[in-house]
This record gives sequence, structure tokens and C-alpha cells, in this order.
Amino acid sequence: MDERTARMCLTAVVEPGHPVLADAVASFGAAQVWAGLLGAEGDLPIAERARRLRPGDLVERTRELRLRFVIPGDPDWPPGLADLAGCEPVNELSGSPLGLWVTGGGDLAPLAATSVAIVGSRASTAYGDTVSADLGAELSDAGRCVVSGGAYGIDAAAHRGCLAGRTPSICVLACGLDQPYPAGHRPLFERIAEHGVLVSELAPGEHPTRVRFLARNRLIAALAPGTVLVEAAARSGARNTVTWANVLGRVVMAVPGPVTSATSVTPHRLVREAEAVLVTGAQDVLEMLSPLGRANPRAPGERRATDELDADELRLFEAVPGRGSAPAGDLALRAGLTVPRCLALLDLLAERGFLAQNPQGEWQLPPRVAQRSR
Amino acid sequence: MDERTARMCLTAVVEPGHPVLADAVASFGAAQVWAGLLGAEGDLPIAERARRLRPGDLVERTRELRLRFVIPGDPDWPPGLADLAGCEPVNELSGSPLGLWVTGGGDLAPLAATSVAIVGSRASTAYGDTVSADLGAELSDAGRCVVSGGAYGIDAAAHRGCLAGRTPSICVLACGLDQPYPAGHRPLFERIAEHGVLVSELAPGEHPTRVRFLARNRLIAALAPGTVLVEAAARSGARNTVTWANVLGRVVMAVPGPVTSATSVTPHRLVREAEAVLVTGAQDVLEMLSPLGRANPRAPGERRATDELDADELRLFEAVPGRGSAPAGDLALRAGLTVPRCLALLDLLAERGFLAQNPQGEWQLPPRVAQRSR
Repeated sequence: MDERTARMCLTAVVEPGHPVLADAVASFGAAQVWAGLLGAEGDLPIAERARRLRPGDLVERTRELRLRFVIPGDPDWPPGLADLAGCEPVNELSGSPLGLWVTGGGDLAPLAATSVAIVGSRASTAYGDTVSADLGAELSDAGRCVVSGGAYGIDAAAHRGCLAGRTPSICVLACGLDQPYPAGHRPLFERIAEHGVLVSELAPGEHPTRVRFLARNRLIAALAPGTVLVEAAARSGARNTVTWANVLGRVVMAVPGPVTSATSVTPHRLVREAEAVLVTGAQDVLEMLSPLGRANPRAPGERRATDELDADELRLFEAVPGRGSAPAGDLALRAGLTVPRCLALLDLLAERGFLAQNPQGEWQLPPRVAQRSR
Repeated sequence: MDERTARMCLTAVVEPGHPVLADAVASFGAAQVWAGLLGAEGDLPIAERARRLRPGDLVERTRELRLRFVIPGDPDWPPGLADLAGCEPVNELSGSPLGLWVTGGGDLAPLAATSVAIVGSRASTAYGDTVSADLGAELSDAGRCVVSGGAYGIDAAAHRGCLAGRTPSICVLACGLDQPYPAGHRPLFERIAEHGVLVSELAPGEHPTRVRFLARNRLIAALAPGTVLVEAAARSGARNTVTWANVLGRVVMAVPGPVTSATSVTPHRLVREAEAVLVTGAQDVLEMLSPLGRANPRAPGERRATDELDADELRLFEAVPGRGSAPAGDLALRAGLTVPRCLALLDLLAERGFLAQNPQGEWQLPPRVAQRSR
């Protein structure tokens, strides 16, 4: 059996986020793992499922539904998913997916590369829906693809915002793409698929379950370089996506809301405990994330007399590229500063004329400094 | 002339927050500075005002209005005001007041010692008024005195909240206490004065001006160990009080709000730039501030096997008093940790059974740890 079909078959019979499967496939290849599964002795439930599966039917069904099954190495495979290999498990789930069913007019990898995940409560408020839709629309207009689930509430509002913008969205489902859940969002899913993509680790015919939602959350967090939490009550599934984003070292952001609203509890708690940076809109999100193209490397040249800067300020100033600009998130990383400290110092440096912020919210050397000193 | 009368006269003729006056009085005494002012040559406007002032009339007017004029050294003088001496100027204002006119049934110093300042926009929203009144009422019920100005909006809502609670409030005005501004709040001022206090650095008869409001803000920040900003637009007078609180090393807190509201801009910006800690209600505020009585010193005793704690966790664990409890803000300070990091570690330590949080939101050793190990 070829590697792609073997990966498809394995994905179809093993629950997503299986901690051992991904390792076994990485070590022995999918075809050998599949053969081993078929030949397994005893009444292992997975082996039983494997023996019942008819690979030809699954391949045919995938084609019939006009789905693509993408695997690592394909041009459409998002490199970010590789970060799931060997990362700390969350709820005992882990591992990069072996493959993904994809449909829609968009290309997954390039969309994911420029994406922002927007996640939040299904039981959102009108405030949360407005914020989510506005974020979606503004990020979309700024050339950012939004990644989200397909649920009611914040997910749907984010996708609807994107549909009004210039960049399509990625919708990651926890069920087969032939019967996207919830059924009430079928018209929304069809509109997303026109220019964007629907993605799932579940084979056609599969229904969502709690564990599948949790496993799906790791894909949302891994696909996007940054995750924004809009609304979430004290106990919320969206909190799980944030945990994944933190485990994966992604930029985690949270939108505050009225303290009188139960759906503000988790965003506020994350900010308070420094697990997320407070963002108030698309501009703040863009500031935190890398630009579409990477910032130009620093131009070599002689240093300016920067005696008046203290150690942190100097590191931050030197982290700013000599040409082009960089978002605050990048600069914090390069200078080894916390994000709040970085934002405060950026303002100070700007006040003193060392730096300037461009209309996109990124930081650069002001013309005179760029010419004179670096 | 006696020191008290000289201080009263100087306060009456010199604008509050004068950077040189406080220093001169500290060096030479008020009586000598007053005599120098009277004898000053040339047409110095302040000297002219001094020569026109009739000290006997001012003392008499103060008595007539049933005002007290308190000065440093009086039992009712709040020690926190001393922090204004020699602190960095804000808007070219600085200096501890030479004295304060006070009226009302409360005692200024003990009330100030347990206080929290609540400041915010005059042009508040219904949301901000609700949050401010709830904060005022809950802090008041928890034995905390609220310090605020007398303005419409957040100030008034905070005082109204306190009037419903068990602890009176302190209202700091930027005008003479005989004609508290705004006149529309006269009934509110009368109710505050029943059990609380009205305070001013301005002599009877004086009207508020922009500079006097700015000088007044330094008193609000200095009187309270912590300041909470509830609502403030991008340019807001309340921002100035927060600057003072930061200059004075006070605990600065901000309540988030809807990102769609202009009055959320400054609280969100302060949190984003780590100039304020996000608080969502009275419980969070109490967690950040010292208890009414200081926490008991750590009981001496043998150490527990705390090998499983890392360096930060160990320092934090050891910062918790052996008996009694301490608020998170204190623990962060003692352990040399940032507040967000401290809050995150406290939760982790609580999860692992090393610490417990009491109903007042303060941190303590759980009974078994307290008995067994320290």
C-alpha cells in the first residue's frame, strides 16, 4: 500500500491526537504500521476497525466528495503542524496529524502561513460577536487569513467577518467534511469553501465527539502563528485552544470585555496571569504578529552613539531592522524582553526619536536615524 | 507666628504642588518662610498675596466653617503624603502639602491607611458607573475606605457605592471646602461628610482650576496604597492620577471594559504596557493590597521538603507568612516576582497543595502544611 493511502486508512481508524501513532508512523512509515495493525493478534478494537475498513472505498469516497487528502511533503501541507510532533501533550492528546481532508477553493499552506486563529465561546454575547466579526473583517482586509472552528458564536462571527473581507478563512472541523457540524452552518461552510478551505482530521462519515473537538483544537492552534481569544467563560472549550497555542509557543492574545459579563472571565484571567497579551482590535493583533514577508535582516553599518539608552533599550533598539519594519512581537522575542515591557520601551524610544511606528503598526527606524547611524 | 498658622497662610497664598515651597518649609520652617515672603522686595505676586492675607481672618473662617487644618505631626496626618516629598515631579508639580483643610465625621489618617483610590472619567458610561459603584460598595464592606475626587461619573459612583457599604469614603477636592465643586454634588458631599471626610489643599473661598485639579490628583494617589482606574478615554484627567500613583510606587490597577467603548482605551493601554494590573472586581483589588493589619511575621521552624519547587516557586512559598495570610501584591514584592508571574505561580502552588486562598482572597499555608512543616 502506498504511503498516502496508508496514512488515510490509519487516520480513518485511529482517533485523532493519538500519542503513539504519530511516533510509530514517523519511525516505520505508515504502510508498515498499517500492515502491522491488520496483522495484530487478539481483539484490539483498532485492529478490528482496520480489518473492517475497505481502503478502496475510502479513497473512492474521498474523490467522490471532491476532497483532497494532504500529507506532509505535499506543497499544501502547512509547516506549522510539524510543531505538534514531540510537543507536550494536552489532555493526553498530542502528535502531528498523519494527513488532513481538505476542500475548498483556497490553498491551505499559504493561507495558514499568514493566519490568525480566532476562538471563543459558543455562548457568545452580542458584544463578542461584534468584536469577533470586526476582527475577522479587519484581519482579512489586512491580508490575514482567519482560522477557526465551525461552531456557533465567536467561530461563526469570525468567519462571517472574513467573508466580508479580502482574505478567505480556514475552518477546522471535528467531523467528516461530508456532514459538517453543526448542520445549521451548512450555508456558512459552503461560503467559506468558495475561496477558503474546510479542513478535518476525521474521515468522511465521522461524527464529532468531545475528544475530537479537543484534538481539533490542537490543529487550530498549530496552523496559526497567533491565537486570539475573544470571549470565554470560566470553563470553556476555547481555553483548551489557548493552552495548545501556549504549548506550541504561539503568540496568544485575548480581547477584554465588560467585567460584568461571564464570558470575560477567561480572557481577563489569561491577561492577569500573563498567559495572553491584551489586544483591543486588529491593529493590536497585527502589531503582535510577523508581517506577510519577513522583515529585512538588519543592514550592517556603524553604530550610533546610543550611550543614553539603558541595556534593555539598547537591545530593543538593536533588534529593529536597519531597513523595513518589524512587529512588536518579533522585537520582544529578538530582544529577549517580555511583551508588555517591550511595548512600554517602544513607546519611550519613539518619544525620544529613536524609533517610529508605521501606519501598519510595525516599528522601524525613523528616516534620519536609518540614514545617519546604521 | 506659630507653625500651624504659618502653614495655613502659606497654603492659602501659594498654588498647591509648588515645587520649591515644600522644600523651603522643610529646611527653614513655615514661620520663617512666611516672614520672608512678607518681607520680599519687588512686586512678586505671591508676596503681594501674602501681604493682603489677614491670618486672623483665615483662622477664624476655618473655625467658623467647622474645618480642621491638619499638618504633619498631627495624629490625623496621613503618613503616605510624606512620599510626595522629593518624588519626581509630574506636570512640574510636586511636594507634600503643608497642611490640609478637613471636615467630616471620619478620621483622615486611619481611613487613608486602609484606602483604595478609585478614579476615572467624568464622562463615564452606565457600565463604568456600575463597576465603580460595585467596587466602592464591596471595598467598603470589606473594610476599605475609598478615596476619590468629587466629580461626576466614576468619582461620584464610587462614593455612592461606599455610602451603601460599611466604611466611609474620603473625597479630595480642588477648591475650598465651603463651596465644594461641582455644586450639583452638594447633597453627595454632605452625605460623605457624615462618617467620612472631605479634604482640600485649597483655602475656603478658593475655586478649582486646571492646575489645582492636577495638584489634587497627587493627593489622591498619595493617600491610598493602591489606585484603581475604572474608565478613561485616550486623553483623560484620571490618567494623571495613575501617573502619580506609579511615580509614588503605589499599586496601580485598571478595570477592563468593552473594546468598543472609548472609555476603555486608557485602562487597556495601561494593562497592555504593564503600567497597571488588570482587576475585574473588589476581590482582585483586595488580593493586590495589604490587609488592614499587617500579615504576621513568618513563624520560625523547620523547613518542609520542598525539593519539587523551582527557585521562583520556593521564594514565593517562603514569602507566605507561617501564620495569617498575605495578599498577592505583598507576596510578589517579597518574592521579587512580577505580579502576573506571582499570580500564575500562586495558582500552581495552590493546585499542588502548598498554598490556599482564604475567602478574602489572601494567600496562606493550608492547615496541614502550616502544622507540619513551618
